[in-house]
Order: sequence, then C-alpha cells, then structure tokens
Amino acid sequence: MRDNKNFKPFTYKVDIKNEEISNPDNHIIRKLSSMKGQYMDEKAYEEMIKKEDCILYEVYEKFAPEVEGELLQGMSIVHPGKVGNEYFMTKGHFHQILDTAEFYYCVKGHGYMMMENPEGDWAAEELLPNTVLYVPGRWAHRSINIKSDEDLVTIFAYPANAGHDYATIETKGFRKLVIEENGKPEIIDNPKWK
Amino acid sequence: MRDNKNFKPFTYKVDIKNEEISNPDNHIIRKLSSMKGQYMDEKAYEEMIKKEDCILYEVYEKFAPEVEGELLQGMSIVHPGKVGNEYFMTKGHFHQILDTAEFYYCVKGHGYMMMENPEGDWAAEELLPNTVLYVPGRWAHRSINIKSDEDLVTIFAYPANAGHDYATIETKGFRKLVIEENGKPEIIDNPKWK
Repeated sequence: MRDNKNFKPFTYKVDIKNEEISNPDNHIIRKLSSMKGQYMDEKAYEEMIKKEDCILYEVYEKFAPEVEGELLQGMSIVHPGKVGNEYFMTKGHFHQILDTAEFYYCVKGHGYMMMENPEGDWAAEELLPNTVLYVPGRWAHRSINIKSDEDLVTIFAYPANAGHDYATIETKGFRKLVIEENGKPEIIDNPKWK
Repeated sequence: MRDNKNFKPFTYKVDIKNEEISNPDNHIIRKLSSMKGQYMDEKAYEEMIKKEDCILYEVYEKFAPEVEGELLQGMSIVHPGKVGNEYFMTKGHFHQILDTAEFYYCVKGHGYMMMENPEGDWAAEELLPNTVLYVPGRWAHRSINIKSDEDLVTIFAYPANAGHDYATIETKGFRKLVIEENGKPEIIDNPKWK
C-alpha cells in the first residue's frame, strides 16, 4: 500500500465518548443484510430485515503498509440488539495467513469474543472496559455485544499482512453461539455448525 | 517459547489507577545505573546516582510464542523526574528485525515518543491519555515523561519475533533530546550523537 521506508510515525485520538478515532483512513458499516445465514433464527432475521436493514457494527481503520512486520489498527463498534434471542455480533473471521494474532483493548461496553481454531478448540472471553484480549494465531474471532443499551467498543491491532478469511465462517459458522436466556447470556452449541 | 498450536486466547485487566496489569508474565525494573552514558549531563547523573540508584521506568510483560505472526504486549510506566534538565526516559531501542512496528496506547500521563530511523529521519510524537501512537518498522523509539508529578503509562503490542537492539542506541544515542527549558519541554540536538 505504501513504501515502508517512507512511512512515518503517527498518532490518533481515541474518542471513547463519541466512539470515533481522529483521521480514520476508512469507515466500514456492516448492516443486517451482510449477515444472511449467520443467525440461528432465520425467521426472526427475515422479519427484522423487512422492517429495516439496520447497522450491526462499524469499524474505523488506520492503514499501514500491508507487509510483514507492520500492524493494521482501528476501532470496532458493535451496536446493541438481538436477532431473535441472539446478540448483535461481527461476521467473525480467520486471518488469511492463519498463524497471525490480534490484540484487542476494550474501552466501552460489555461483550464476548467468541473464538475457535481449526484444531477443534473454542474459547469465549469476556470483554469489559480496560481489558486486553489476546487472540493468538489460528483462532477465528467474533465480537458479541451482550448489553441492551450500550455499544461494545474495542481498539485492535494485528499483523498488516494477515488478510481476512470471512468465507470459512460464512460457510461453517462458529461452533458456539451466545444467546440471551432469562435475561442472561448463555453459550450454546450452534445447531447449524458444519 | 510455547507451542503455537496449543497457545490459548487470554485476557488481562489494565488497572490504570494502580498502574499494573493482572497476571503479568514478567516485571522489568530499570534503574538509573542501567542508563550510564545516555544522559547529556554526566555530572548531574553521577551526583544523582551517588545519592540513590532510583527507578526510572518499569515494564509489565505478557508472553506469547516468539514467532512471526504473534504479538508481545504489556504496560510501560515511566516515572517523573529529570537528570539535570533532561526528563526521565526509557533506554530506547530498534527492533532486531528492523522492519517491525510497535503499537502504543497511552492511558495516563503526558510525554513524548522520540523516534528515528537509519535513513536519518526523526520524529517526536506527543503522548496523552487515549492517544494511539504507531511506530512503523525501522524506527527506534524511546518514551519520555514530561510531567513532574505523574507517571507516563502506555499499553504496547509488537511482533513477537521482533527482538530488541539496545546496543545501537547505547552507542550512538538518539539524534534529538527532550529537555526542560523555562518549565517547558524543548527538543534539542544531542551534542553527544555519533
């Protein structure tokens, strides 16, 4: 993307209150329509989208050269809501270069990171303000907002050559889902997992 | 260090008030005696160290496999103080694998990151709470605390295979120094720079 040798240090402000970073290089907006087939309750999904193709999450990105040794960074914002009884969440992805990690620092909200690796392990770690989450290489990861009235906001950094593999999760899903049961989050098996 | 395939996701709390992280894997303490020759005012340095070999900065580390694709992380704390009119600072280093970046998130205090690359460029970026600083590959970096009564606290992440080259800075120094002049930070040429 840019010549590594001429790439200069930079800073940006993290505005936790307004949930934005200064001078983002890109702003991704993901709506309900981009998550077709990902939610357990397909009927609830179809009924919701008929009313409004609402925004599920947003990502502000800062760029760096997409080469080994550099890091891409930004802010992720998952809005509150549910499809049926399943919380709003990100698409979730493996990295194209599977053995690349990701660093998350939660600055607002309450949620989970759902993770799994090709070896068959899964893990769900809680996200709360001032928590660092480390996703090692090989682990697919998806942010899930379990609050009903607040965004889940994280700052992230990952190897700039990692790339994104969304297709594997779109096809297989995650082994586990986080749903609301009696007003509380519960981790259940994904009945549609292949 | 650890088998990548069996390395699991983890979280840790960042305690901004008490300036520590939960369950650190390592705690580095750097005293004045480890900075011999690094400060401009050698007489002030010798007089200070005769009184007390005080702590200049501390680092809490979290480990990950030291291989390409993983990230090492932790918290850095630079205490307030001066040697002569030069602020307390970290040793500063290049990465052994020169083309590796570093991500910093400032959570407390006020300072500068002094940086330079082998091509002859230098940069000084201000660190304030909720500022992200991105140090691209090739840039040596040193944290400097410009407050008289507060620690400078940052969270960092960098490629786990980067390694540290302290020797180049110990021998050459940084091109620029940050000193206090009339109660304010000033960036000046380093008279000892080789």
